[in-house]
Amino acid sequence: MPQPDLPTLPLGARLQDPLLVVEVEHRTGDHPHTVLTLGNASGRLPTAPFWPTDAAKVAGITRGAVVQVIGTVSSYRDRRQLAVDSIRVLPRDQVDWRALMPSIGDVGRWWKRLDDWRARIAGPRLARTLALFYDDPDFRARYEQCPASTAGHHAALGGLLKHTVEVAHIGLATARLYPHADADLVLAGALLHDIGKLDSYTWEGAFEMTVPGAVIGHVVLGAFQLDRRVRAQQPMPCTEDELLLLHHLVLSHHGSLEFGAPVVPMTLEAEILHYADNASAKTASMDEALDDPENFPDDRPVSARTVWQLDRRRVWRADSDWGAPEPEENISD
Amino acid sequence: MPQPDLPTLPLGARLQDPLLVVEVEHRTGDHPHTVLTLGNASGRLPTAPFWPTDAAKVAGITRGAVVQVIGTVSSYRDRRQLAVDSIRVLPRDQVDWRALMPSIGDVGRWWKRLDDWRARIAGPRLARTLALFYDDPDFRARYEQCPASTAGHHAALGGLLKHTVEVAHIGLATARLYPHADADLVLAGALLHDIGKLDSYTWEGAFEMTVPGAVIGHVVLGAFQLDRRVRAQQPMPCTEDELLLLHHLVLSHHGSLEFGAPVVPMTLEAEILHYADNASAKTASMDEALDDPENFPDDRPVSARTVWQLDRRRVWRADSDWGAPEPEENISD
Amino acid sequence: MPQPDLPTLPLGARLQDPLLVVEVEHRTGDHPHTVLTLGNASGRLPTAPFWPTDAAKVAGITRGAVVQVIGTVSSYRDRRQLAVDSIRVLPRDQVDWRALMPSIGDVGRWWKRLDDWRARIAGPRLARTLALFYDDPDFRARYEQCPASTAGHHAALGGLLKHTVEVAHIGLATARLYPHADADLVLAGALLHDIGKLDSYTWEGAFEMTVPGAVIGHVVLGAFQLDRRVRAQQPMPCTEDELLLLHHLVLSHHGSLEFGAPVVPMTLEAEILHYADNASAKTASMDEALDDPENFPDDRPVSARTVWQLDRRRVWRADSDWGAPEPEENISD
Amino acid sequence: MPQPDLPTLPLGARLQDPLLVVEVEHRTGDHPHTVLTLGNASGRLPTAPFWPTDAAKVAGITRGAVVQVIGTVSSYRDRRQLAVDSIRVLPRDQVDWRALMPSIGDVGRWWKRLDDWRARIAGPRLARTLALFYDDPDFRARYEQCPASTAGHHAALGGLLKHTVEVAHIGLATARLYPHADADLVLAGALLHDIGKLDSYTWEGAFEMTVPGAVIGHVVLGAFQLDRRVRAQQPMPCTEDELLLLHHLVLSHHGSLEFGAPVVPMTLEAEILHYADNASAKTASMDEALDDPENFPDDRPVSARTVWQLDRRRVWRADSDWGAPEPEENISD
Amino acid sequence: MPQPDLPTLPLGARLQDPLLVVEVEHRTGDHPHTVLTLGNASGRLPTAPFWPTDAAKVAGITRGAVVQVIGTVSSYRDRRQLAVDSIRVLPRDQVDWRALMPSIGDVGRWWKRLDDWRARIAGPRLARTLALFYDDPDFRARYEQCPASTAGHHAALGGLLKHTVEVAHIGLATARLYPHADADLVLAGALLHDIGKLDSYTWEGAFEMTVPGAVIGHVVLGAFQLDRRVRAQQPMPCTEDELLLLHHLVLSHHGSLEFGAPVVPMTLEAEILHYADNASAKTASMDEALDDPENFPDDRPVSARTVWQLDRRRVWRADSDWGAPEPEENISD
Amino acid sequence: MPQPDLPTLPLGARLQDPLLVVEVEHRTGDHPHTVLTLGNASGRLPTAPFWPTDAAKVAGITRGAVVQVIGTVSSYRDRRQLAVDSIRVLPRDQVDWRALMPSIGDVGRWWKRLDDWRARIAGPRLARTLALFYDDPDFRARYEQCPASTAGHHAALGGLLKHTVEVAHIGLATARLYPHADADLVLAGALLHDIGKLDSYTWEGAFEMTVPGAVIGHVVLGAFQLDRRVRAQQPMPCTEDELLLLHHLVLSHHGSLEFGAPVVPMTLEAEILHYADNASAKTASMDEALDDPENFPDDRPVSARTVWQLDRRRVWRADSDWGAPEPEENISD
Repeated sequence: MPQPDLPTLPLGARLQDPLLVVEVEHRTGDHPHTVLTLGNASGRLPTAPFWPTDAAKVAGITRGAVVQVIGTVSSYRDRRQLAVDSIRVLPRDQVDWRALMPSIGDVGRWWKRLDDWRARIAGPRLARTLALFYDDPDFRARYEQCPASTAGHHAALGGLLKHTVEVAHIGLATARLYPHADADLVLAGALLHDIGKLDSYTWEGAFEMTVPGAVIGHVVLGAFQLDRRVRAQQPMPCTEDELLLLHHLVLSHHGSLEFGAPVVPMTLEAEILHYADNASAKTASMDEALDDPENFPDDRPVSARTVWQLDRRRVWRADSDWGAPEPEENISD
Repeated sequence: MPQPDLPTLPLGARLQDPLLVVEVEHRTGDHPHTVLTLGNASGRLPTAPFWPTDAAKVAGITRGAVVQVIGTVSSYRDRRQLAVDSIRVLPRDQVDWRALMPSIGDVGRWWKRLDDWRARIAGPRLARTLALFYDDPDFRARYEQCPASTAGHHAALGGLLKHTVEVAHIGLATARLYPHADADLVLAGALLHDIGKLDSYTWEGAFEMTVPGAVIGHVVLGAFQLDRRVRAQQPMPCTEDELLLLHHLVLSHHGSLEFGAPVVPMTLEAEILHYADNASAKTASMDEALDDPENFPDDRPVSARTVWQLDRRRVWRADSDWGAPEPEENISD
Repeated sequence: MPQPDLPTLPLGARLQDPLLVVEVEHRTGDHPHTVLTLGNASGRLPTAPFWPTDAAKVAGITRGAVVQVIGTVSSYRDRRQLAVDSIRVLPRDQVDWRALMPSIGDVGRWWKRLDDWRARIAGPRLARTLALFYDDPDFRARYEQCPASTAGHHAALGGLLKHTVEVAHIGLATARLYPHADADLVLAGALLHDIGKLDSYTWEGAFEMTVPGAVIGHVVLGAFQLDRRVRAQQPMPCTEDELLLLHHLVLSHHGSLEFGAPVVPMTLEAEILHYADNASAKTASMDEALDDPENFPDDRPVSARTVWQLDRRRVWRADSDWGAPEPEENISD
Repeated sequence: MPQPDLPTLPLGARLQDPLLVVEVEHRTGDHPHTVLTLGNASGRLPTAPFWPTDAAKVAGITRGAVVQVIGTVSSYRDRRQLAVDSIRVLPRDQVDWRALMPSIGDVGRWWKRLDDWRARIAGPRLARTLALFYDDPDFRARYEQCPASTAGHHAALGGLLKHTVEVAHIGLATARLYPHADADLVLAGALLHDIGKLDSYTWEGAFEMTVPGAVIGHVVLGAFQLDRRVRAQQPMPCTEDELLLLHHLVLSHHGSLEFGAPVVPMTLEAEILHYADNASAKTASMDEALDDPENFPDDRPVSARTVWQLDRRRVWRADSDWGAPEPEENISD
Repeated sequence: MPQPDLPTLPLGARLQDPLLVVEVEHRTGDHPHTVLTLGNASGRLPTAPFWPTDAAKVAGITRGAVVQVIGTVSSYRDRRQLAVDSIRVLPRDQVDWRALMPSIGDVGRWWKRLDDWRARIAGPRLARTLALFYDDPDFRARYEQCPASTAGHHAALGGLLKHTVEVAHIGLATARLYPHADADLVLAGALLHDIGKLDSYTWEGAFEMTVPGAVIGHVVLGAFQLDRRVRAQQPMPCTEDELLLLHHLVLSHHGSLEFGAPVVPMTLEAEILHYADNASAKTASMDEALDDPENFPDDRPVSARTVWQLDRRRVWRADSDWGAPEPEENISD
Repeated sequence: MPQPDLPTLPLGARLQDPLLVVEVEHRTGDHPHTVLTLGNASGRLPTAPFWPTDAAKVAGITRGAVVQVIGTVSSYRDRRQLAVDSIRVLPRDQVDWRALMPSIGDVGRWWKRLDDWRARIAGPRLARTLALFYDDPDFRARYEQCPASTAGHHAALGGLLKHTVEVAHIGLATARLYPHADADLVLAGALLHDIGKLDSYTWEGAFEMTVPGAVIGHVVLGAFQLDRRVRAQQPMPCTEDELLLLHHLVLSHHGSLEFGAPVVPMTLEAEILHYADNASAKTASMDEALDDPENFPDDRPVSARTVWQLDRRRVWRADSDWGAPEPEENISD
C-alpha cells in the first residue's frame, strides 16, 4: 500500500495509515497540550493539539513508536495539521516501520559500486581484511540501515552506506592524482573509517545515540571493531604493520585533535581520506541546508538563520542557467 | 644539451654548465664565507665555501641569477659540494633559465584536460566569461608558468596549472555526487579561484612574492582581475547576478576567515570548491613532505621534524603491498 | 507637523499619524496573534495584539512599511501599547518615511568637518581621488543616509557619515603624534574604509543587508568601488602604487583575518586607521549599551545581560561628579 | 662634551669616550669569543671580537655597565665595528649614564601638556587623587625616566611619560565625540593606567624587568599603588565608589583576559582608555618596526621578517607625496 | 520547628511555614502571570500561577525575601506546585532566614581541620600572617557563611569554607609527593586564594554578585585584602618578599590568563594550588550535575543536556559494585 | 663498582668507565666536528670535539650505545669536558646499561603502595581485572622500567610507575572528599590510564617513541591493551558495562579533545582522574624546571627562558623559612 504523501495532502483529506512518531512535545504554559509530529517516508505533519482532556489518547506514545492514525488534514493559521480522531500504537513486529523512516531508498546501487571497487583490490591481504566485514551478511544487514548521524548529514536509513560510497568516490578521485598514493588503501580507509557508527547509533523508529557512542565515540569504537575482528582470525589476514596502517586511517580521519581524532593524519592516504570524509559530510550538510525551506522564510535568498552543521554559517540560494538552452528543448522532434 | 643530474653526479665529476642560483647565504661567525646553492631541473648542489679572499667571485650574484659555472664535485664530511673554479653571471636573454627551474614538465596534458572540460560547459555566458581568461594567449602564457606558491605546495613552474586541474578534477568528482550541484559552476570556480596568483608571484629564476601579493593577497587580487575583465566588455559576458556568484567562489575559497577568506562559502559550489582546493593543496604538501629525505634522517619511518605546510604535523613513511604479486610479473610471457 | 513623542505619550492619548513598521511578529502558540512595533524618530511603541479575527487589518503589512494609524495609547501589565482602530499602508512616495527612522539628525555639521579636512589635503592626486567620491552628488546623497550597521553601532540614517567623521577625528589625532605618519593618508583611509557599506545595506524604512553585502562583504565591496572609480578615469587620478596604498587601507581596516580583513595592516597609516575604526565602533556600542534601559532592570548598576556587540561583556553604569560644583551654578550671576 | 655619533663615525675614527654596555654576547663554537655591543644616545656599535687571550679585558663587564673605551672604528665584511684598545668600567656615580641611554629627550613639553590637562579637571576629588601621584616630586622624578617596556614600544628613558601623554591625547580626542563620556575620567585613566610600571622595570643602564613585575605584573602593581596611596590619606581624597571607578580603569585597560586584564572594560571611559592605550602602543611599535633597517635587507619594501611586537605581522614601507609640491619650495623666494 | 520537606510533601498537604523566595518570574504572553519559586533547606517548590487578579498578593515580593505562606500542595500536569492562599513578607530580623538557604550544614568539622592544619605551620611569620584573617572573629563569621559561587560549585552557605578545606586537602596531598614543595605555603595559598569572594558575593536570602565582584573580580579583591591587612600591621607580620610569594599564589590561582589570572603560576606551590583548586571546583560541579535529576529525563544514563559549569560537557550516570558483597551483609549476624 | 660522579669530577680527573651515549651531535660549519654527550646515573658530561681526523673513533657510535671510555676531565672556557683518549662500544649484554640511565631508583616502595591499594579493593571483578596486568610478572617487569615520557615529566627508568602512584595518591585524596565517588574506580583509572605507554616508548639506553606511539598514541594503545586482555579471558573478569567504565577512564584522561582525549570525562571518577594526572605531570615538570640550573643563568630568580613543558611559562625560584627555627637546631643535645 502506498504511503500518503504528507507534505501535499489537501485540506480535508482523510488519513487512515500507519505513521511514525517523529517527535513528542509536551508544551507547558497556560494552556498545556501535547503535539505529535508524525511522519513517513514522504515527510512529516504535526497533529492538532491534544488538550489535557485528550491526554489519555497520547499516554505512552513515545518517539520512534509506530501508530495507526485516523484523522483529517485541517489548517490552523496557514499551517497544515492533522486533526486526529483515533491513534493507537502498533506492535513493532506487525509493521514495516523501516519503510516509514527517512531513507536513501534502494541500497543496491551503492552496494554494487562498493563491491565492484573491492573486487579490484590488488593486495589479497587487504581484500581479506575488508572481507571480514563486507562479506559478513550480518554486518551488511546492519550497515545498509545505519544512518551516518542522528541529526546532521546523511541522517537516514542507509545514510552511512551512501556516505561511505561518497567518501570512497572522492578519495579515489583524489588518489588518482597522486602516483605515490595507494588507492586501494584509500578505499580501505573509506570502507572502515565509520564502522564504529554501527555501535554508536540505533534506528528503531528514531535515530538515537547509544551509551558507547556517547562515552567512547565512533572513532575509537571503529578501531576496537577492527582490532577485534582482525585478531580473532588465526592467522591474522594481514600483518601487524598493515593493521597499524588501517588503525591509523580510522583513528585520524577527523583530521585534528579538536575534532576528536586522537591522532592526526600522517600518511598520504590518511590525508586524502580526511578531506574526502569532510567533503562528503559538509557538502551533504550544505545541500540539506539549502533544501530546507525553513531556512528561507519569505523566499529571501540568504538564509535567515545560521546552520550549526556548517559551523554557524548562513547559506545562499542562488543559481543561474548562464544562458543555456532548456534541457527540454533538446528533446524536441 | 642535457642538464647534468646534480643529485647523482659522482665525486670528481667535472661540471661546465649554466645553473640557477637558488640561494645565496652569507655566513657570519669567526670564519665568514659565502655558500651558493646552485640548481637546475634535476635538483640542487651547494658550492664549497667562498672565503673572503674569493669575495670578488660572488660579488653581485643574487638569488635567481643564471650563472655559467666551471667546477668539480667534491665531498666534505659525506656531503657532496661543488668546488667552483669559475663562475660568471649570464645575461638573462641568452639562457633558457626556465629550463633550469623546478617544473611540472610538459603542460600540454594539463591544458588538454582543462580545455576539454571548458568545451563541455552548457551555459554560453559562463563559457564566455571563462574565455576572457582562458582564450587569452597572454593569460595562458603566464598561467602555465606561474607556481602555486613560493615555497609550499606546487612550488614549480606550471604548478598553478597543475593545481588548477587537480582542484577541478576533485571538485567535479564531488559535484557528480550531488544532483543539486552545478558542476559547470564548480569547474568555473576551480579555474578562477587562484588567478590572483599571477599578480602575487614572480618566477624569474626564483619564486618571489610581489608587493601586491603581500599587501592585498591573491584572493582579492583574483577578484579584482575578474571584476576588471568582465566589466571591460560591453555588454558584459554575464549578468551582474552571475558575476556575484563567481566573485563569491573566488573570495570564499579559503573556507574561513582565519585562513584569509573575506567571506565564508555559502553555496553548494563554493563549499565543494573549498574542499577540493584544500584536498589538492594539503595532499600535495603531504606528498612532498614524504618525498623529502631530509625529513627522515637515519631512515626512521616517522619524520624527525614537523612540517609547517601541514600545520606542524609529523609524517609517517609506511606502505605495504598487502601480498599483491609484483606488477612486473604480470607483464611476462 | 511634529511627530508624536512615542516614549512619553500618556495613557489615553489619541494618535492619528504616519508611523513606520519596525517589526512584525506573528506569535504562535495557543492564542496566535500578531504584534506590530511601530516607530518614528522619537522612538517605538508596540501595538496591542491583532487576533486572528483582525488578521485582515495587518495582512500585507511588512517590515519597513509606512502606515497611517489611528489608535489610543493603552496599558497592559504596566507596559504601554497602542490599541489600533485603523491602520493602512501609505504609498511610499507620499510620505517622508526618512523622517520617521532613527537618524543622526542634521548632517550638515558632519559634512562640514569632513569637507574642511579634505580641503587641506596637500597632495593633489590624493585630493582628486577622494573627490571621485566626495564631489559626486549621488554618492553624497546616499552616503549621508546610509547606516553604519543594521543593528550594531551607528544603526541610524546618517550613521555611516557620523562614524566616518569619528574615525577621521580619532585617526588624525593619533597621526599627529607620529611624525612619520601621513595624516592625509589616514584621512583618506577614514573616508574610504567603509564605502562598501553603500552596497551592503538598504534603508528604505528598515535597515537590511543586501545580497552582495552578505556574500561579498563591505570590505571587498569597498575595494571594488575604489578600483572601479579610479580606473574609470583616463588618466587615473593617482598612480598604481598610490592606488595600492589605498586598497591596503580599505582591505586591512578590520585588523586581523578572523575579523574579516583579507590582509592585516602593514603600514603606519593602516594601523592608525584600524584602531580609530575600532575605537569609534566599540565606544559607540558601549554608549548605546549603557543607554539602553533594558540592560538594567530594577536599576541595578551592572547589566543583567551580556551585550553581543561588545563580545558578550556586561556593562556597568557608574559615574560621579567628583565633587565638582553643578555646571548650572556657573551660569548664575 | 658631545657624544660621538656612533652610527656615522667613519672608518679609522678614534674614540675615547664613555659608553654603555648594551649587550654582552659570549659566543661558543670552535673559536669562542666575546662581543660587546656599546651604545650611547646616538645609537650602537659592536666591538671586534675579544678572543680568549683578551678575556681579562672583558671580565666582569655586564649589561648596563658604563665603560671608558679607547679604540678605533674598523670594518669587517662591510660591517663597522670598534677595535678596542682599552676598556674599563667606570664607577656609576662618576658618569651621567642616563645621557648614554635611549631617551625621549627633554621631558618638559610632555609634563606641560599633562599638567595643563590636570589643571582643567572639574572635580576636586579627582584632581586631588591624581595629585597624590603627580604632585609628588619623587613620583615625578621616577616617572619621567621609566620606560614603557623593556624591549617593545617606548623602550626609552621617559618612554612611559611619552606613552602616557599619547594615551591621554587619543583618549581625550575620543571622549570629545561622546557626550556621555566623562573626559576627566578618561584623563585620569590615562594617567594611572601604567603607574605599576614604576615597580616593574629598572633602567640603571639597561631596561630590566623586576621580580614583582614578573610575578605580579604591572596591571595589578598599579592597582596596589593606587589602593595604598588613596587609603593612606585620612580622609581619603575620593569616595570608595570613586576609587572603584579608578581601579576598574587600571585593571581593565588591557581589554581582555587573554591579554592580562583581570577584568574587561565595562564603562565608556574604560573602553575609550583601552583603545587609546592600544593605539599608542601598537602605532609606536609599527613606527619602530618601519624605522628599523634590519627589517628591510636589500631595500625591499616588504619586511623580510615578521615583527613579534605586531603579532608576527610583516610591515610595508611605502609612501607617496601624491603630487604635493615639495615643502621646501614654499619657503624660498 | 522542623522545616517541611518540600520535595516530598504529598498532594493535599497543608503548608503554613516561612519560606525563601528563590525566584520571581513574571511571564508575559497572552495570559500573563507570576510564578514564585519558594524554598527552604530541604529544596524547592513552585507556586501555582498568580493571575493579574492576584497581582496584589505578590506585589513587592523580591528574590531573597522571606515569606510566611499558607497553601496546599496541588498538581498540574504531573508537576507538584503550591496553591497559595496567603503570602506575606516577614521582617528579616524576625526569621532565621539562613536556616532556609542551601547550606553545607555544621561548619565545625571544616573549621577543625583547617585550624588543625594552621596549628602545625612551622614558620611563625606565615602563621601570624594567616592569623590576621583566621583569628579574626568577624572574618570567621563571614567566611563560614559565604558561598563559593552564586550558581556554580559550592553555591551554599558555608560553601567557601568547604571548598577551602577541599583545596587544602588536595594541595597538601600533592605537596607531600614533592620534597621541594613547601607544604605550609600550599596550605597558606589554599586559605588565602578565595578570600576576595567575601567582597564579591552577598547571601542575604539569595546569592548575588556585588558590584566590586563584577568590576574588579574576586582574584584581585583577595590580593587587595591581603595587601591591606598585612600592611596595616607595624611591623608587618612577614617580609616584603614573603608577601610577594603570597600575592603570587592568590593572583595566579586561576592558572592562565584566559581564565582571569593576571599572572600564571610560576612556583611549585602556585602550580599545586591551581590544580587543587580546579580539582575541587570541577569535581564538585560534576558531582552536582550527576545529582541533578533534571539532567536525566526518562532515566536515560547520559545527560540530555550539556552542563555549562563543565565547559558544556554531557555527563554519564554509571556505576557498578564490581561484584562486591553488599556492605549491609557484613554487618549482620 | 661505583659510578664516577660526572657533575663534580675535578679537572684532571682520570676516567676509565662504561658510560651511556646520551647525544651525538655532528656540528657543521667551517670546522666540523662531533661532540658526544656521555652520561651515567649521576649526570652528564660532554666530550671535547672529535675533529675530522678523529672521525674513525666515533664512527658507528649512536645514541643509546654503551661505551667504555678512557679520558681526562679538562676545561674549555669554563665548561668542563672530557678529553677522550679511547672509546669503544661495549656489547649490550656485557653491561648493566640500565644502571647508567636516569632512574627513580629502587622501585620497591612504589610497588608496595600500589599493591597495598590494590589489596583493599572491595569489588572482586575490579580486582581481577587489574590483576590481569598487575599480577603478570612480564607486565610488572616492563612497567617498573618504562618512563612516563621521553623528554618531559618523569623521563626516567621507573618514571611511569612513580607517576602512576602519584596519580593514584592524589586521585584517592580527592575521591575521599566526595561520598559519591567510587575510590576503587579512581584507583583503577590511575593504574590503567597510561598502560599504553608500554607500547609507546623504548628505553634501551635512550628514551625513544615507537611507531605505534607516534601513529596511534598511548591513550588508544592503552584502551587496546585493556580490550585485548579482558576479552582474552573466558569468561571476562568483568561485565561489558564495567569494561565500558574502564575504557572511558582511559580514553578521557587527557581531559579535552585538543589534548588528545577522543572523549571528554563524563563521570565523577574520570574527572578526578584527569585532574590527578594533570597535577602529577605538571607539578613534576615545574619541579624539574625549577631544579634545572640552565634556566637560571647568573642566579637570577626568574628563569631567563620559558619552559615548553609548562606551556611556555617562566618559573620563579623563591622560598622563605618564614622565621622557622632551623630544623638542625631541633636535633641538639
